[in-house]
Amino acid sequence: MLQKIFEQYRDSFLLAIIAVIIGVITGAIDCLFGKILINISTFRDANFIKLIFLLPFLGLFIIFLYKKYGKNSIKGMSLVFGVAHNEEDSIPLRLVPLVIISTWLTHLFGGSAGREGVAVQIGATIADNLGKLTKIKDSKKILIVTGMAAGFSGLFHTPIAAIFFALEVLVVGSLEYNALLPAVIASFVSNYTSSQLGLEKFHVILKTHLVFNIETIIKISIISILFGIVGGLFAHILNHTKQFLTKKLPNPYMKIAIIGAILSITLVTIHFGRYSGLGTNLINDSFLKSSDHIYVYDWLFKFVLTIVTLAAGFQGGEVTPLFAIGSSLGVILGSLLGLPCTLVAALGYSSVFAGATNTFIAPIFIGVEVFGYENLPYFFLSCSIAYLFSGNKSIYTSQKVLESRKEL
Amino acid sequence: MLQKIFEQYRDSFLLAIIAVIIGVITGAIDCLFGKILINISTFRDANFIKLIFLLPFLGLFIIFLYKKYGKNSIKGMSLVFGVAHNEEDSIPLRLVPLVIISTWLTHLFGGSAGREGVAVQIGATIADNLGKLTKIKDSKKILIVTGMAAGFSGLFHTPIAAIFFALEVLVVGSLEYNALLPAVIASFVSNYTSSQLGLEKFHVILKTHLVFNIETIIKISIISILFGIVGGLFAHILNHTKQFLTKKLPNPYMKIAIIGAILSITLVTIHFGRYSGLGTNLINDSFLKSSDHIYVYDWLFKFVLTIVTLAAGFQGGEVTPLFAIGSSLGVILGSLLGLPCTLVAALGYSSVFAGATNTFIAPIFIGVEVFGYENLPYFFLSCSIAYLFSGNKSIYTSQKVLESRKEL
Repeated sequence: MLQKIFEQYRDSFLLAIIAVIIGVITGAIDCLFGKILINISTFRDANFIKLIFLLPFLGLFIIFLYKKYGKNSIKGMSLVFGVAHNEEDSIPLRLVPLVIISTWLTHLFGGSAGREGVAVQIGATIADNLGKLTKIKDSKKILIVTGMAAGFSGLFHTPIAAIFFALEVLVVGSLEYNALLPAVIASFVSNYTSSQLGLEKFHVILKTHLVFNIETIIKISIISILFGIVGGLFAHILNHTKQFLTKKLPNPYMKIAIIGAILSITLVTIHFGRYSGLGTNLINDSFLKSSDHIYVYDWLFKFVLTIVTLAAGFQGGEVTPLFAIGSSLGVILGSLLGLPCTLVAALGYSSVFAGATNTFIAPIFIGVEVFGYENLPYFFLSCSIAYLFSGNKSIYTSQKVLESRKEL
Repeated sequence: MLQKIFEQYRDSFLLAIIAVIIGVITGAIDCLFGKILINISTFRDANFIKLIFLLPFLGLFIIFLYKKYGKNSIKGMSLVFGVAHNEEDSIPLRLVPLVIISTWLTHLFGGSAGREGVAVQIGATIADNLGKLTKIKDSKKILIVTGMAAGFSGLFHTPIAAIFFALEVLVVGSLEYNALLPAVIASFVSNYTSSQLGLEKFHVILKTHLVFNIETIIKISIISILFGIVGGLFAHILNHTKQFLTKKLPNPYMKIAIIGAILSITLVTIHFGRYSGLGTNLINDSFLKSSDHIYVYDWLFKFVLTIVTLAAGFQGGEVTPLFAIGSSLGVILGSLLGLPCTLVAALGYSSVFAGATNTFIAPIFIGVEVFGYENLPYFFLSCSIAYLFSGNKSIYTSQKVLESRKEL
């Protein structure tokens, strides 16, 4: 009895210490990854036409890199989920440099992709490998969750959202409470480390405030249903496009070269690179400029081109493009229904993410940590509705569902 | 396939309609219950000495009432949990008048008890009985959760906290996502109904803001550990006192008369009724007056006397006394560690609740819905730590635990 309590205390204490280390290392790598990614994006925008037609050749290089050095790194997020679910053994350390370099290159040559997947993989890999050194009993899943929280937090500087994301994303309908303490520690430490090293946070102060009445509640509900459907569709179509392309072009070199070539021509033709990269241009236009800087079809092109980029085999995450899709769709829907555009854009930012990741609490906190705590009721309403209408789809195909939740 | 989708849509739509009805009825009853309870409390304070010595006789009357008319109503919250877990068949409608009247009387004659248990039982009973009329497949648990959210929300006017409370309290480590849509609807409708009918909300605007630095984080962490331990101990000791008294005094009439007599003498002797009733006097003193209006031992007497009142067999909830225990302890700990007393009192208000109910997300939202959204990081930190250190105890003995969470 006493022996057992002592072991629990000791293990919890050890996990807390490891969480600090995970937080510091992940925060530092997140910062390096994020800062260079921003510089690369600026460089690409300035030299777009010189770079974009090299996209298919870069694709060949990425496939070569993963084939030659990657082991099973190519599985990416599925590998992270697999280890957490005890279906895979471990995450090789080489995943970190591989995913960072190939994501940098994807962005340099104009692919449309995100970055959170990379950060989450960095955190999980570091946590998994530190865990192997320490051998705390039954700590594999706890450490993966801890690493995911650290990775997300260090990149986006939304520490509470990162904790809930890591706790709720593995299994829909259940929270990994076992990992709460180390996840809290790692998330705040990673956020702090990365901030101190100079990675900036995207945040917007919303000046518009709505009075909650029946009319605005109905309007926000309708808009949130659309956000949920768009998010769910993104996950659904991404997964099917990946399968479809792999079936039609089973050779990954052929696939990435052909799709990469089509992609580069498309990215030049449609607004000359507007849909390359993270989509922060669309996000900035949504919040910092007047609503006529956003085209009606911005969200749709970002939606399609991100799916094609990722399905072809280029590297990067999905979340920042999802933020961009949500914001630009929000601006349009807001002006259509006569609601403040920046507020609806903010709701889209978080709710399309909710729909695409099949998470519910994390996006509420993304909303308040980016756009201000006082907007909590809006984000609660919008994210819970979007979650309900996402069709239970997720960009993370290895996500499990504890109980089938009823769909509307 | 189409048939199944149609049925799901129809059921969800029906549940949404029922949720509105649950919200309206529960909100109205909550308002009636809450307003009369406040008047009764004022009346008791004015006529304390005439009433307090009747407490043991009232006890006999309550036992008689439940024995004669109660069926299994005496099980209270355990019955609600039992029906949700499919271990009990249904909640009889008579539970509503019985629990309301006996709680009013407990407060009139000076017992130390709460009110949320009553509100939650009202909501759950109404939901369960409406469910029997409609016969939607597999909706029993969903409706109980919906009713619990409506009950909590209509009384405390913290609709988001109420939703999370109902979703997370049944099974630790899992959220009843199936009930999300009806719970959201019922909670907001109940809150709206009860507000419109004139039940006031307790809220405080915290003017003190702390800069997060290592020192304040360590101080808040230590205080939150204490809050968690106090909450966990409250649940633990309450459950053991109930068992102990039942063993020593198996006749419920004897039990309530003897303990009631001791209780009434004690309540008069120690500060003449300061620890009778809900404890809103302690809460108001904690937030609205200077810190020297709170005695060092206030929290401890409220703690002990609430446990004795409830273990004797008097009726009422635990939550408002827990708020009072947390606030008054917070004032003391705040001045001890040189932190702003009202802020620490607010953290105690929510975190002792977290410790005693073994919930984690609901108390964070109680904190921000009562004390302002902009204080979210404080409440997140405090409630998550309190939850971790509560020892996995709960005032709700029928609560299940999905996976044993590791203790520190």
